[in-house]
Amino acid sequence: MTDSRPFQKIAHIGIAVADLDAALAIWRDQLGAEVSDVCTMPDRGLKIAFIPVGESLIELIAPLRDDSEVSRFLEKRGPGVHHICLAVDDIQARLDLYRSRGLRLVNDTPSIGAEGYPVAFMHPKATGGILLELLEERSEG
Amino acid sequence: MTDSRPFQKIAHIGIAVADLDAALAIWRDQLGAEVSDVCTMPDRGLKIAFIPVGESLIELIAPLRDDSEVSRFLEKRGPGVHHICLAVDDIQARLDLYRSRGLRLVNDTPSIGAEGYPVAFMHPKATGGILLELLEERSEG
Repeated sequence: MTDSRPFQKIAHIGIAVADLDAALAIWRDQLGAEVSDVCTMPDRGLKIAFIPVGESLIELIAPLRDDSEVSRFLEKRGPGVHHICLAVDDIQARLDLYRSRGLRLVNDTPSIGAEGYPVAFMHPKATGGILLELLEERSEG
Repeated sequence: MTDSRPFQKIAHIGIAVADLDAALAIWRDQLGAEVSDVCTMPDRGLKIAFIPVGESLIELIAPLRDDSEVSRFLEKRGPGVHHICLAVDDIQARLDLYRSRGLRLVNDTPSIGAEGYPVAFMHPKATGGILLELLEERSEG
């Protein structure tokens, strides 16, 4: 794998919000953004609103319960950008390459994310403090 | 102005970093991203590296001095996403609309940003804690 332009696009920016209705009142009603979908993910304890922006999405991510994936972030830092997700060509090859370089990963292999594509998180220690998610868009779904 | 899809794309994500060389060692050397430009802005006390990702940029923003635009953020929160910049069609009309809705702005009128386009910041109080920048891409520069 060559390393020229490994990232095809910003797939999404995940913004942690304490209250989804309040966040929608801001983004949809005041800023005027179009919300394409709102999806509840009980397993992950999350409710997510999707806002298409060009080739990317802004995802407003709210906790459904205290042990959700964003609860600790919200407690510690308050609402804000939780993670950035970048699209790559071959997620497994990319994860293998990064691991071979000694970069710390949260997930060694991808799982299926909220958008229906394989995703994996890198550890913030590997990326200078940013929670970075990789995603592979597959046409076959 | 109608409100359907006011945001054309994510123009950039601004990431505050304490040390630009260390951030480039991560993003360019380890993650393999292509850095298109590094630009020093003495007036704003910043040095910025630009990483093209699809139609967007990731901007690594480092302070040149203690009173730079990112110094307080770095002191308070450490390295991380400093702001999100969204492209709009007509920035002045958009700012006027938001002001008429009672949304708090940092800049009532745009100034020219690092990419050479008119930009203006909204106040985080208006956007649920996110520092949101608007940008108008003008072909005439």
